[in-house]
Amino acid sequence: MIRYPNGKKYKPVQPTNPQKGKSHSYSNRGKTLEDDLNETNEYYLTRNIAVIHKKPVPIQIVNVNYPSRSAAVITEAYFRTPSTTDFNGVWNGYHIDFEAKETKSKTSFPLQNIHEHQVEHMKTVMKQGGITFLIVGFTSLERYFVVPYDIIEAKWARMKDGGRKSITLAEFDSETLEISLGFMPTLDYLKAMPSLISRNK
Amino acid sequence: MIRYPNGKKYKPVQPTNPQKGKSHSYSNRGKTLEDDLNETNEYYLTRNIAVIHKKPVPIQIVNVNYPSRSAAVITEAYFRTPSTTDFNGVWNGYHIDFEAKETKSKTSFPLQNIHEHQVEHMKTVMKQGGITFLIVGFTSLERYFVVPYDIIEAKWARMKDGGRKSITLAEFDSETLEISLGFMPTLDYLKAMPSLISRNK
Repeated sequence: MIRYPNGKKYKPVQPTNPQKGKSHSYSNRGKTLEDDLNETNEYYLTRNIAVIHKKPVPIQIVNVNYPSRSAAVITEAYFRTPSTTDFNGVWNGYHIDFEAKETKSKTSFPLQNIHEHQVEHMKTVMKQGGITFLIVGFTSLERYFVVPYDIIEAKWARMKDGGRKSITLAEFDSETLEISLGFMPTLDYLKAMPSLISRNK
Repeated sequence: MIRYPNGKKYKPVQPTNPQKGKSHSYSNRGKTLEDDLNETNEYYLTRNIAVIHKKPVPIQIVNVNYPSRSAAVITEAYFRTPSTTDFNGVWNGYHIDFEAKETKSKTSFPLQNIHEHQVEHMKTVMKQGGITFLIVGFTSLERYFVVPYDIIEAKWARMKDGGRKSITLAEFDSETLEISLGFMPTLDYLKAMPSLISRNK
């Protein structure tokens, strides 16, 4: 169980949309976790709360055409495996660095959704004094969790030792920080930062 | 219509062909400033000094083919204008964020090499307590400078007020921090950080 500073339990923000309820499924919303985070980051940016961006997808460019009078066209390129996490930036003097993943499962998050080199990257960021975590969205449940790096490391080690290859929803409930969908911002994950900071001390 | 920043063509990684170029010029080294910085960042990473990466080039993907039994091929895509700086990461608890530009000029650095939205981005990073700067390489001179954000802001404002559209080499000498090419690391720009930190206090 993770508690907020001064012993209070972490209390997620309640969504301010009165029409939103159990009858509205995730697919009804028509947005991905990445959309929600981009919206949230835009909110943070315009209100001078934080400067956090999604990194572009890494691409290996093989061929480019330069037609006269129009824009260069990439005609052959391939996706590369990202060597870092997807999102990073700065908030309140802290370096923020995280990966976001969604799953349709209603019971657990498969660890194969993250790459070993991403876990390695998070470890190095942690060592340099950055704040690093994973945001997991259970889209079928509309539940979202901020997973501190040390929890990821522990579950990863368990898998390496031959244990289970996923994090159960029960573990999310007891070991991570839940955040709720809201209106503005959509997914206020920075609320979990004070708790992450106090863990690392 | 989307064009590549500054109308420049996409430049693939430079081959390190020793026969290329003139006697002892920059081109003899066969490496771009970006190559030097990637090498330096690799050095920092492997020695646990810092975790700093170049962001991928932002691409607008229009069409992708998925041939069976082989990798997905992007067959139509366009370069997008970057909305942030090229490099960022974490060092010693500090968020590091910078742009790197080289010029063949021997006398001044044209401010048109940086975009207004990049200067805006640097300002927001500064406000959040990050360390932000520009690295300028005068490749013909093999001289490299770390330019603190406040100097960029001042020169940018001078240009906006109808003043000169570049920063002179004399100004680099008197107002910025010179860094030297070395062996390991190639371009040890983190040496300039203590000075940048004390400026911001």
